Amino acid sequence: MQNSKLRTALAEQMRDIYWAERKLVDTLPKLAEAAENADLVKGIKKHLEETRGQVKRLERAFEALGLQARAETCDAMKGLIEEGEGVLEKHEKGLLRDALIIASCQKVEHYEIATYGTMCEWAEVLELEDVKTLLGETLQQEEATDLALSEIAKEINQSAAMA
Amino acid sequence: MQNSKLRTALAEQMRDIYWAERKLVDTLPKLAEAAENADLVKGIKKHLEETRGQVKRLERAFEALGLQARAETCDAMKGLIEEGEGVLEKHEKGLLRDALIIASCQKVEHYEIATYGTMCEWAEVLELEDVKTLLGETLQQEEATDLALSEIAKEINQSAAMA
Repeated sequence: MQNSKLRTALAEQMRDIYWAERKLVDTLPKLAEAAENADLVKGIKKHLEETRGQVKRLERAFEALGLQARAETCDAMKGLIEEGEGVLEKHEKGLLRDALIIASCQKVEHYEIATYGTMCEWAEVLELEDVKTLLGETLQQEEATDLALSEIAKEINQSAAMA
Repeated sequence: MQNSKLRTALAEQMRDIYWAERKLVDTLPKLAEAAENADLVKGIKKHLEETRGQVKRLERAFEALGLQARAETCDAMKGLIEEGEGVLEKHEKGLLRDALIIASCQKVEHYEIATYGTMCEWAEVLELEDVKTLLGETLQQEEATDLALSEIAKEINQSAAMA
């Protein structure tokens, strides 16, 4: 399966998400700065550290495939990040901005869950055990981050509904 | 909570996803046409019908909020659809294209799961029971579609790995 077309497709998805993760390393500090709620700020900073690790893990997955790590613009993530940055322009620091930052972050997490989910399936049928393990670790982090954001959202949403 | 800021944010998200769902009503027939696997074609056509219902459900939710249904361009969905259409340009009909169509569709589903998930939470804290019920029905359909696509993918991925 060294030359399988699905392997080529896997490498393409990896270049797409490699672009996305590196873009997030630039974007998450802006969101942490823009958020007010202490738990949210802490949660974003924690995920920034994880995202740096995810970039490294992708580099190891490229290496395992015998490929140079390369990024290709990911139109979807570009749109997602534009939406998130639009929130910061439109809304002042406070409850509503926090609720909208969480909404944006969860959209990003779900994009990543779908992408890593697909890549893990492909790595499995391609019998690329090491690549599957690397991508699977990141998938678990993205799922945990999505759940953590839902928890943080509860209090913020309650207060924002009254504001 | 009639004038709550979160209610305004909910209406904004609804305009965003209303644009997205209507765009999908245009895009899904192209994907069904471009797919080869019979189960995949059937699955996309089924979801097209569901998407038409989701558009109507959003119109009822706008009505329940006393608002006119209005669409606002959703940058993220625009990017997701561009990615999906790129697959059709780059790859001929066959296994690999099918695997990539599924990957694109699952990214779209996850975008919707995140968006409807947030909107349901907001509708709940805003005590908008009827809106929550309408959006919750769609959320369940999106989650079921994502699972169905994972099932359809299994056979296609196996064959694509050998191709």
